[in-house]
Amino acid sequence: MPTVELIEYGMASPVVREIFDDIMATRKVDWVNNFWKALAIRPELLRRTWHGVKSAMAPGLLDPLTKELIYVAVSVTNGCQYCINSHTAAARKKGMTEEMLAELMEVIGVANQTNALADGFQVEVDDAFRHGGRGA
Amino acid sequence: MPTVELIEYGMASPVVREIFDDIMATRKVDWVNNFWKALAIRPELLRRTWHGVKSAMAPGLLDPLTKELIYVAVSVTNGCQYCINSHTAAARKKGMTEEMLAELMEVIGVANQTNALADGFQVEVDDAFRHGGRGA
Amino acid sequence: MPTVELIEYGMASPVVREIFDDIMATRKVDWVNNFWKALAIRPELLRRTWHGVKSAMAPGLLDPLTKELIYVAVSVTNGCQYCINSHTAAARKKGMTEEMLAELMEVIGVANQTNALADGFQVEVDDAFRHGGRGA
Amino acid sequence: MPTVELIEYGMASPVVREIFDDIMATRKVDWVNNFWKALAIRPELLRRTWHGVKSAMAPGLLDPLTKELIYVAVSVTNGCQYCINSHTAAARKKGMTEEMLAELMEVIGVANQTNALADGFQVEVDDAFRHGGRGA
Amino acid sequence: MPTVELIEYGMASPVVREIFDDIMATRKVDWVNNFWKALAIRPELLRRTWHGVKSAMAPGLLDPLTKELIYVAVSVTNGCQYCINSHTAAARKKGMTEEMLAELMEVIGVANQTNALADGFQVEVDDAFRHGGRGA
Amino acid sequence: MPTVELIEYGMASPVVREIFDDIMATRKVDWVNNFWKALAIRPELLRRTWHGVKSAMAPGLLDPLTKELIYVAVSVTNGCQYCINSHTAAARKKGMTEEMLAELMEVIGVANQTNALADGFQVEVDDAFRHGGRGA
Repeated sequence: MPTVELIEYGMASPVVREIFDDIMATRKVDWVNNFWKALAIRPELLRRTWHGVKSAMAPGLLDPLTKELIYVAVSVTNGCQYCINSHTAAARKKGMTEEMLAELMEVIGVANQTNALADGFQVEVDDAFRHGGRGA
Repeated sequence: MPTVELIEYGMASPVVREIFDDIMATRKVDWVNNFWKALAIRPELLRRTWHGVKSAMAPGLLDPLTKELIYVAVSVTNGCQYCINSHTAAARKKGMTEEMLAELMEVIGVANQTNALADGFQVEVDDAFRHGGRGA
Repeated sequence: MPTVELIEYGMASPVVREIFDDIMATRKVDWVNNFWKALAIRPELLRRTWHGVKSAMAPGLLDPLTKELIYVAVSVTNGCQYCINSHTAAARKKGMTEEMLAELMEVIGVANQTNALADGFQVEVDDAFRHGGRGA
Repeated sequence: MPTVELIEYGMASPVVREIFDDIMATRKVDWVNNFWKALAIRPELLRRTWHGVKSAMAPGLLDPLTKELIYVAVSVTNGCQYCINSHTAAARKKGMTEEMLAELMEVIGVANQTNALADGFQVEVDDAFRHGGRGA
Repeated sequence: MPTVELIEYGMASPVVREIFDDIMATRKVDWVNNFWKALAIRPELLRRTWHGVKSAMAPGLLDPLTKELIYVAVSVTNGCQYCINSHTAAARKKGMTEEMLAELMEVIGVANQTNALADGFQVEVDDAFRHGGRGA
Repeated sequence: MPTVELIEYGMASPVVREIFDDIMATRKVDWVNNFWKALAIRPELLRRTWHGVKSAMAPGLLDPLTKELIYVAVSVTNGCQYCINSHTAAARKKGMTEEMLAELMEVIGVANQTNALADGFQVEVDDAFRHGGRGA
């Protein structure tokens, strides 16, 4: 039950249509998912968000599948139903198997557990870990 | 300012010492970090948590560095200062460079942004993404 | 699927009915929404929560629409489906247009993104921002 | 204790310096805060994040102070120390008084309370609130 | 819409079946809930998670009902629909009445409200509360 | 580094002083903690919040210690440093031992872990758990 009307391709303005085209071309699919149709009510928001996602998820030092796993980890921790489903699907498309999904969830589960324990006991950062261990 | 007294190796019971030994051997270090010293007030909690972390972070279909990046992603999303620092340090030790850290943060940032947008607009899961795209 | 039975007006005790009447009168509507019907299983919780909401949302230095936007921002960040829908509806009733909703979401999205980045890099508060910039 | 080295203006590359200049010009200040110095380790991340923030916070249908209040609301809900301090300071600079800050916190507090109650009782969205009340 | 195929008892491997048997025996029920059927795609994850839950929820210095109330409090704060429903049901089975549920929610609501206020005003920990008041 | 000036007893208005007196009398202490001194910048916020906390934490069907454990569970899950320390201290004062604290943390840790797993696999609520098991 989206709180705004979804903008379908056929109803979209040329500027929105151009972004929809780029989304489909980049992802090699022939349809646009609901998330982008919702953002299209504000073309500038659609454009900036899409470019941010496209840039962040492009191959770099981290490969695209690793980036999807990270995306899923954030989405699970936030409990975002839409993003868990869409990025689990995206990770599968990029090669994630059921066994890898289970390993991913095991790490996410343990991380959430130990985050709570570290906060719960108010554990102080060890000297060796300060600055994320960069030694400064 | 931990809310419990840290158990130092020299003061630890044999059962706690054995786990501390396993932590140091597994990680190839000669010291135990504060997190485990806090959990040691309840040896069963220490033992179970350590075995859970050890098992989840062991090499599998996902490599140890990828698992650390996922751990950092969860910790950042939860805002856990201790875990962000300790697992950023662990990721560095396993080969994460500054450039990789920056890429990781870019993905985490974008994921948190789009999680909020998907929730904010209450976007419905597309049919193709249902069941995380497993097609059932 | 509420976890408690909703108390309908016709079944309510006089004390609950009086609060329901105040909710309807304050909001100039002739029905009570499910949230309050759930809280009615404990009249004191209903009374105190309603008075807290009524007081917080009353016109003050911040106008009622601004307060609704803030409410939506909190609800989106918490991912609370009920509150996102009910307070988006309330904001619309107080004058929020689709364009304003889109602007609101843009700010919420960016804030969640930069919150993650600031936590992720463990950025230290600048001297000028300490005490929220109150200069003490 | 940032986990990356902050890039000071004097050490910055021309592309980073240009963004730093735009930050200072836009905000009418003669210094750059730590957040941007951390992001500067990845100029593309710095550039994209700054443009996203600049665009989202620019005057629109919502005025700049209202946008800062929304930013604070998100930051408080996420418990982000850096962002709470920096955006409380920014809101003050744009005219927020102590009384307005207190009103803001009252709304944020009540919203977090009722979010928990709505989730806790698993209250179902009323028909009138579906689609955020847009009537579709 | 689970993102993995649920493993039903009849289809389960002997190692999974043994854990399912232990879950049913421990809880004195003749069926296994969906959560465990999902985890069964990775028997080691199922085994370790079940033993962690079984150990944590066993009678100790805190009684089983108190532990369920704590579980519900965490689940509500995380907004986890599955866990709110399953642990509210578990608490009821262990003796929680509607009146106790309402009291529980009142505490959870107030705690979420004051958490936001303490973070929002960035209140410093009083000396008497440092180390969680353990006086060290 | 609070973002507002704390109101000390000696500087407080009669209406604030009266609430401070009630806090000290109720808690049988001769000092007021920083949280209330911050809220005192808006007496109505102070009054309402204090009465909400006082009412929620009063002995009822749940005893005061159980209520403190629930408060700690929420605060840990939100990662609120102030509230973790102050309510751990309050729980200790009401009789929580180190062993009970460790048990509490074990439950909180496991709950956060399984919340993530249930969300991560998008597990559907079993029929028997719908409505929190109230059978409707």
